[in-house]
Amino acid sequence: MRMYDIIMDKRNGSVLTDEQIKFVVDGFTGGSIPDYQVSALLMAIYFKGMNAHETAYLTDCMAHSGDMIDLSPIPGIKVDKHSTGGVGDKTSLVIGPIVAACGVPVAKMSGRGLGHTGGTIDKLESIPGFQTSIEKERFFDIVREIGLSIIGQTGNIAPADKKLYALRDVTATVDNISLIASSIMSKKLAAGSDAILLDVKTGSGAFMKTLDASIELAQAMVSIGEHMGRKTVALITDMDIPLGHAIGNSLEVIEAVHTLQGHGPADFTEVCLQLASNMLYLAGKGELSQCRKLAEDAIASGHALEKLKAMADAQGGDVSVLEDTEKFAKAPLTHKVLSPADGYISHMDTEHCGIASVVLGAGRASKGDPIDYSAGILLLKKVGEQVKKGNVLAELFTSQVNSIAEAERMLLQAITISDTKPPEEKLVYARVTMDSVEKF
Amino acid sequence: MRMYDIIMDKRNGSVLTDEQIKFVVDGFTGGSIPDYQVSALLMAIYFKGMNAHETAYLTDCMAHSGDMIDLSPIPGIKVDKHSTGGVGDKTSLVIGPIVAACGVPVAKMSGRGLGHTGGTIDKLESIPGFQTSIEKERFFDIVREIGLSIIGQTGNIAPADKKLYALRDVTATVDNISLIASSIMSKKLAAGSDAILLDVKTGSGAFMKTLDASIELAQAMVSIGEHMGRKTVALITDMDIPLGHAIGNSLEVIEAVHTLQGHGPADFTEVCLQLASNMLYLAGKGELSQCRKLAEDAIASGHALEKLKAMADAQGGDVSVLEDTEKFAKAPLTHKVLSPADGYISHMDTEHCGIASVVLGAGRASKGDPIDYSAGILLLKKVGEQVKKGNVLAELFTSQVNSIAEAERMLLQAITISDTKPPEEKLVYARVTMDSVEKF
Repeated sequence: MRMYDIIMDKRNGSVLTDEQIKFVVDGFTGGSIPDYQVSALLMAIYFKGMNAHETAYLTDCMAHSGDMIDLSPIPGIKVDKHSTGGVGDKTSLVIGPIVAACGVPVAKMSGRGLGHTGGTIDKLESIPGFQTSIEKERFFDIVREIGLSIIGQTGNIAPADKKLYALRDVTATVDNISLIASSIMSKKLAAGSDAILLDVKTGSGAFMKTLDASIELAQAMVSIGEHMGRKTVALITDMDIPLGHAIGNSLEVIEAVHTLQGHGPADFTEVCLQLASNMLYLAGKGELSQCRKLAEDAIASGHALEKLKAMADAQGGDVSVLEDTEKFAKAPLTHKVLSPADGYISHMDTEHCGIASVVLGAGRASKGDPIDYSAGILLLKKVGEQVKKGNVLAELFTSQVNSIAEAERMLLQAITISDTKPPEEKLVYARVTMDSVEKF
Repeated sequence: MRMYDIIMDKRNGSVLTDEQIKFVVDGFTGGSIPDYQVSALLMAIYFKGMNAHETAYLTDCMAHSGDMIDLSPIPGIKVDKHSTGGVGDKTSLVIGPIVAACGVPVAKMSGRGLGHTGGTIDKLESIPGFQTSIEKERFFDIVREIGLSIIGQTGNIAPADKKLYALRDVTATVDNISLIASSIMSKKLAAGSDAILLDVKTGSGAFMKTLDASIELAQAMVSIGEHMGRKTVALITDMDIPLGHAIGNSLEVIEAVHTLQGHGPADFTEVCLQLASNMLYLAGKGELSQCRKLAEDAIASGHALEKLKAMADAQGGDVSVLEDTEKFAKAPLTHKVLSPADGYISHMDTEHCGIASVVLGAGRASKGDPIDYSAGILLLKKVGEQVKKGNVLAELFTSQVNSIAEAERMLLQAITISDTKPPEEKLVYARVTMDSVEKF
């Protein structure tokens, strides 16, 4: 088999065979196929696409290029959740505890933030002492004991994806649905859960800016999951506005705690309840409406909050900050951003809200940059709300005095104030399964 | 400027700017742009194409990546000829002398044979003592003295093309008209002539198998030449049948001498006269019909043959073999290929005739392989001729006894014998200029 023929076959629009796909993934990962041939193939794939089987098989090969986590020592149906990334997206901190409180084990590996989006691991590490690098055996023990553990991605997960993504990133071959879907799903398959809930963000703060593109990506990922024998469902959720009020690590943990206490922001609470219901549904806890009731009860009873505290305790975290969020370290500098006009907030460029929070120190421009856990933004007014000139739109938190002016300028540019109230936006646009796209 | 953006622009169908094209050629040749980005760009070009200006500018950048030969020390209008390569194509050995005999200086750099096609330099070197590696000053002197010199490609001609072609060759991005045209023309522009005649072969032995594709390539190359200020004309000539009877180096020199003596094969003589007429036309020697007369006279008067001998003499060759071609070294083994049936020769797979000659030792499978100058094939019967079972179709010449059976088998497979006489094929299909495609 020759790489040249594989490139030409795809260039000419042929469907690649399983053997050809395996040859490419193994050869590229092992170093026998040079990157210049792989980048030519990626560009041919960009133009000619891959069908559902090719995409699923590519994903499987990439998953098997490294460690395949075996979660079978943990009893029960394990459901993983993946979000395509957003601003203020602290859902994992709420739905993990809800689902665990309903008796479904959550053994989750999460990532760090990069660019305008945050990461669950950084958020958890804003709890003093919280450990996210934990040996597999201890991780399993925690899940078996308390039903919930979230740790950083460990071991050698899908190295083929890592190498392929790095090449796509410099050859303008990132934005192809099959390649995006297989990249995400290869890591989910390797992570070993029985079922997968995908939270595909759509809108100005998301990778996919339109609903159609988001649904297409969701369908591609659900198809891969089901092809590989994992029950998979996707929700398309809004990221045209930051989720909740808080952007920034400890600010988001505090908002998650408030939500688990039953007084979180309405938008964020609703999205968490829908995601949690679908995870419970995938775990076989009944019809969606029953699962919704279980999720609501888990908050109302306080059981979900107890699970968050139990996980923090098990992973070395200081539980007192979760019991009294006033105990979180506070940013030394705060600054109020005032409305420059009367009117209604009609639009927020979510990506730029995220970048403003990075400027304040809450995120990373490059891998390995340090993070200021207390830095961030509280959005006091959101899309649809009426404001008067001089009202406080948002509060900035930072330890870098010279970041405030830039962050304020960016935030004000990101917010549009108009004379008329904008139409209400949906929180969840669609639910995608193997057989259906249910739009709300 | 970032290579990433250039790849994305072309991927999205944009026309690249001159600055972008220069950035790519300079960066790739200089090593600052990695091959994996260039191969992704090449695949994007394969799918999205380049317009006439982009193609011409790319060609110019590649030409200027190395030495630009300055032929101005040689007085007169210098016309170059380029053939896209064929089997039995010894036209340069005939039209160079014709054109020189008509007072137009010919300062030509030629290539060696590779694969199923031969090369002019190898053919000339079958003349004992003939030197093709000659210093520039001596090359110019010979042209000034006798009006004709053909040498091997020298110096650092279009290194960007060399590097780019090597990458295309392993990434399935060779067959794009713009890239093929710019590759050929970059070397022609660097070779420094005032005008260029292109001999674009079409048919089973050519790179372009169909007339339409050949015309498209001819138009792309003529467009580049004219864009860059060189008068350029292309003839589309037949390569569905080997040209003339001889395939193999000294066999072809002998056939060229016979043609210059006025008794060459009719097909080969006619193609040479048309090519020579067009070169004389490009050199400003009058209307095509007048130029045709000049070319015919150059053969009839013996002046053209004298030029070939004068060049051989000036370049150290043994002129006696041109005066009496019986003096050429003969292959130790000959073998007659007999017709297996009665009928008409209706088709010859020209590429396979060429490969059979390589098997006999007349060509190279890989760069640097040695060549047996006396090896080759004389085709005694060609397409359209009636044959009886047992008639001699061809004679094989070699010094390798174990190559005969394979070459005979290949040749017989390449020849189709049918009951009915096939329609006559044209020798020259079309003449392509900047403004017109004249089909014959």
